[in-house]
Amino acid sequence: MSSVDQSTLRLTADVVLTVDDEQRVHRPGVVDLADGRITWVGPRADAPPSGVPELVVGGLLMPGLVNTHGHTPMTLLRGPGDGLPLRRWLEESIWPREAALTDEDVYWGMLLGAEELLRCGVTTSCEMYLHNRALAAAVFDAGLRAVLTPGIFDLPGAGPEAEWQCLLESAAALHDDLHVDGGLVEVGFGPHSAYAVPADGLVATAKLAQQLGALVHVHVAETIEEERRVGARHGCSSPELLARLGVLDGPVLAAHSVWLAPRDLDLLAEHDVAVAHCPQSNGKLGSGVARVGEMLGRGIRVGLGTDGPASNDNLDLWEELRLAPLLARGVAADPGAMTAWQALRLATRGGADALGLAAGSLEVGRHADVIRLELADAAFTPALSTEELVAHLVWGASSRHVTDVWVAGRQVVAGSRCTSVDAGRARDEVTRRAHRLFETARRGA
Amino acid sequence: MSSVDQSTLRLTADVVLTVDDEQRVHRPGVVDLADGRITWVGPRADAPPSGVPELVVGGLLMPGLVNTHGHTPMTLLRGPGDGLPLRRWLEESIWPREAALTDEDVYWGMLLGAEELLRCGVTTSCEMYLHNRALAAAVFDAGLRAVLTPGIFDLPGAGPEAEWQCLLESAAALHDDLHVDGGLVEVGFGPHSAYAVPADGLVATAKLAQQLGALVHVHVAETIEEERRVGARHGCSSPELLARLGVLDGPVLAAHSVWLAPRDLDLLAEHDVAVAHCPQSNGKLGSGVARVGEMLGRGIRVGLGTDGPASNDNLDLWEELRLAPLLARGVAADPGAMTAWQALRLATRGGADALGLAAGSLEVGRHADVIRLELADAAFTPALSTEELVAHLVWGASSRHVTDVWVAGRQVVAGSRCTSVDAGRARDEVTRRAHRLFETARRGA
Repeated sequence: MSSVDQSTLRLTADVVLTVDDEQRVHRPGVVDLADGRITWVGPRADAPPSGVPELVVGGLLMPGLVNTHGHTPMTLLRGPGDGLPLRRWLEESIWPREAALTDEDVYWGMLLGAEELLRCGVTTSCEMYLHNRALAAAVFDAGLRAVLTPGIFDLPGAGPEAEWQCLLESAAALHDDLHVDGGLVEVGFGPHSAYAVPADGLVATAKLAQQLGALVHVHVAETIEEERRVGARHGCSSPELLARLGVLDGPVLAAHSVWLAPRDLDLLAEHDVAVAHCPQSNGKLGSGVARVGEMLGRGIRVGLGTDGPASNDNLDLWEELRLAPLLARGVAADPGAMTAWQALRLATRGGADALGLAAGSLEVGRHADVIRLELADAAFTPALSTEELVAHLVWGASSRHVTDVWVAGRQVVAGSRCTSVDAGRARDEVTRRAHRLFETARRGA
Repeated sequence: MSSVDQSTLRLTADVVLTVDDEQRVHRPGVVDLADGRITWVGPRADAPPSGVPELVVGGLLMPGLVNTHGHTPMTLLRGPGDGLPLRRWLEESIWPREAALTDEDVYWGMLLGAEELLRCGVTTSCEMYLHNRALAAAVFDAGLRAVLTPGIFDLPGAGPEAEWQCLLESAAALHDDLHVDGGLVEVGFGPHSAYAVPADGLVATAKLAQQLGALVHVHVAETIEEERRVGARHGCSSPELLARLGVLDGPVLAAHSVWLAPRDLDLLAEHDVAVAHCPQSNGKLGSGVARVGEMLGRGIRVGLGTDGPASNDNLDLWEELRLAPLLARGVAADPGAMTAWQALRLATRGGADALGLAAGSLEVGRHADVIRLELADAAFTPALSTEELVAHLVWGASSRHVTDVWVAGRQVVAGSRCTSVDAGRARDEVTRRAHRLFETARRGA
């Protein structure tokens, strides 16, 4: 006797790429989803009887991509200030607008960003931003998986709401209210960086996060300028400062990690700190090129991140998936510096491991976060072996090939359209609000 | 009295971005096409009366992208050998398959590649490959604009057909038969490189090309290993060798140009040699990162190239358009190293100038090579100013946004589908032929 309900689904595809420890494919293959988890994966010929109708989707099924570093509501700030150095860009273009953000702005900015992420096949995003109740509402409405790590920092002169104590308290309340282990939304803490949070704020945040077993998500060594500032103030690098303050003693995700000395990389490895590698943002903002090949060589867990859409400027993680090996190989002038398979792992299982989530691969018990790609395209031609399919995915595929997306077993993209978000309304809202923020910032200047 | 014929068209769009010398847009704007050329561009309100019905396309119209370095029939060889150094990849994976290529293989490989190029909004491609009559037939069938520069080289032991004299003769015959100044297909010469063609072959090719006023398209300093080989044999760099042999005295396009000393860059500038910058291929193959910022600073003409689909692995020039500024900024750790506008120019007018074609911008008298992008997308939201539109195009747009393409006034992509090529048949042909080439190479090994 089999029971059939809405949350149970059997997907059959021409190719199922599991992205577990081996380059494993099933042709044709089956993925069973129930109650938001994967319950069976394998060749169609071996699939056990199931009470649910088989949905024959054709094409390729693989795990959804995992974005380990986002400030997604910054869709509202996408465009202005291109070409400025990071600090001037923040001070002249971003912060004056962010000071005028409302809850509603952040809701619509996040909703539009979630629509873009999902259409690109990104099923999880780790978010560090402001107005987190509104952000969370958009995440739930869009049906995106997210780790929310509310931003904690001190903005001198911006009033008590922008002081770390207040922001930490509100992050703790968000954790109490929304965090569910293994739920669609998990909650961690986002102390901005070693330079934007005072030492006592870093210590207090880390202690609380460690008590709760929650993730600490922090910008590390994004630019050489900030590393120089940390060095001048503390006489050490930011990883050294974070280690000294005990921040690295719990689960930590270090975004960017561009300007690290070998000793800093050792510190990350010793403390099992994960890295969110953001090659497109680091290139666009002229921050530099992170040494991700060396990180992998040291056994550091690495995921990929888009960063915010104001510093990328899109949320298409396929570009990071391609950029990571391209930069690793190009800068080292060594085509062996990163394999296509390593790159594909970074964007999926590597990202999930960096966030401590049971996602990023099609294995029994993992989250039912699945994407379908259309294979009837020149980019996948010719298809010879599994190894070459992986090469096509890394070097040829793009968000253009993503046609269907399921998050926790719920279909949120069908026929390349996001079904959970009214994209037209979201674009209109973001455009209208962006104009208001622009005018507000201009009047304030 | 106005005469209406098939080759006359008035396109009206929400935004027309001309990509001429200024960041000029018309909202809404009109582009008139007749006999394969642009006859009027401007704001809709100012458009002169026209006897032809207005085709209201909405969205954005801009010039088609120009690919300055391709070996497009290598769609047949896409996939295998990823991660090998360039020389081993050529010797183990590529050359054994290329030795077995037939005219029909090259026709289908080029046809599938042209379909991909056109769908990505690439309206011109400069091609260096083999079996050029078959290649040209596919170019005409697809309706792509192309500069064909038949490959000229010496493959020791491969028989008289792979000797430079024979290849030069056949290139000259192709020029006689197919070249039309300003036609859909122009013909130049493709002496492979300073290391794969003997000195007398380089001299003879350059002399003939200069007599005909034809382009010489040559690989220059792609890898450090080949520069070392040239240095050991000739005691100088490849630009120095080419200059000494008189090759740089006519129009020359130097592909890659990664490993150049300041003196080599000076040589290129002095001889007005154009560069085909191929950042994705150079990254994927671990060749290195060309110093394109310095080239622009010296006034060198630079276009972008995909290189062959076996070393990229797609033909989506939007990726090069984004990679060029990203690498220039990232490697220099300077966000001012290349502006978004400079990048957009490289992919359009810069490429056309590098090839000596009247294309790459929407200006009266230029080729009617026009693409339409869908603006109703998160990647173009919010739209504030023209400068920000350019930033969105460079940092956010992708081939996914290209919906319609006209080459020489003929529509070849409509609703994101290539109307001039049967894509399904082309994919089947390429897959079948790729399997045969794989088997042939395996048996030969």
